[in-house]
Amino acid sequence: MINKRLQDFKIILASQSSRRHYLLKELGLDFEIISTDVREEYPDILTPPEIATFLAEKKAESIDTLRMEEKMIIIAADTIVSLEGEILGKPGNYEEALTMLKKLSGKQHDVITGVCIKSRDKKILFHVSSKVYFKELCDDEIDYYITNFKPYDKAGGYGIQEWIGYIGISKLEGSFFNVMGLPVKEVYEELLKNYSYLC
Amino acid sequence: MINKRLQDFKIILASQSSRRHYLLKELGLDFEIISTDVREEYPDILTPPEIATFLAEKKAESIDTLRMEEKMIIIAADTIVSLEGEILGKPGNYEEALTMLKKLSGKQHDVITGVCIKSRDKKILFHVSSKVYFKELCDDEIDYYITNFKPYDKAGGYGIQEWIGYIGISKLEGSFFNVMGLPVKEVYEELLKNYSYLC
Repeated sequence: MINKRLQDFKIILASQSSRRHYLLKELGLDFEIISTDVREEYPDILTPPEIATFLAEKKAESIDTLRMEEKMIIIAADTIVSLEGEILGKPGNYEEALTMLKKLSGKQHDVITGVCIKSRDKKILFHVSSKVYFKELCDDEIDYYITNFKPYDKAGGYGIQEWIGYIGISKLEGSFFNVMGLPVKEVYEELLKNYSYLC
Repeated sequence: MINKRLQDFKIILASQSSRRHYLLKELGLDFEIISTDVREEYPDILTPPEIATFLAEKKAESIDTLRMEEKMIIIAADTIVSLEGEILGKPGNYEEALTMLKKLSGKQHDVITGVCIKSRDKKILFHVSSKVYFKELCDDEIDYYITNFKPYDKAGGYGIQEWIGYIGISKLEGSFFNVMGLPVKEVYEELLKNYSYLC
């Protein structure tokens, strides 16, 4: 249905993330994938939501828009994990993942995904925030997860759709898909609002 | 890891639901599946959580326990949808699904999964409740979903893991997996608490 409504547009997902590919496909959308190579750096003064949208915008901007067709839409996103004011990035190795998961254990943190939807004449930036509550994780649960799932490509060192999400999350407030990496409902709404007719 | 801790036990999932098979597998558990044939009827006086646990218990009890081995654990569950006091069952056809989704549109409802974990000497009953908020769904979104996903085996006429969950749910409070059909974290905890050692 969404394809029919957006049929004039060619949609590009600017992301290497297999989770985002999966989520956008489940939304029922046809799209192409372009990899971006953006350093995940940002000015110190930004708040967590500003960081997420700043990085999403940077990814969208990294696509060469000189050759942008009139009816092309780029979707880019960045997901960050914020724990008591501290931003947890992607862990570089086992030790960093261990440190992050020990910090998250027994606490509530925020997962914020910034999204940039960009066409030749318009750019839409927004973010969606969700609250995730981890139970107290024990050492062998954390060790088992890192050893078997190697969450080194994931902000905060975990994936909610993986084993640790099944056994470790006591409560979610917000959107599961947003925590996975893309707030699909809001992406769907923005696409229809801006590039199609509303029902 | 969970298999190692529960290695002495043979686990039986008493459910035809492919969602429950998937969720228990993702938990990392080895188990067998037995189909149950239970009429989803319950006394009028029960509250929504009581209905869910009553039906879960009925499913677990339907397994012939005379031939139950000492180290066997049966897991059964039932998921119900409760909207402003009304229980929405499985829609029998297109019209019933349409009616249900129109009722859910723009409102908050509760999804309650009752679980029964039963071994030869012990029976554990509990329920987990989650709040789901639907946006205002338009007629062609509802029609597209029912026509393409035929949600006739799902309480309330929808699956949160399907297209309508992607585009239609504005907020979730609780557990995504519970809404899908099995509160895996709580099942994991109860299994470890009762049949293994705690970490």
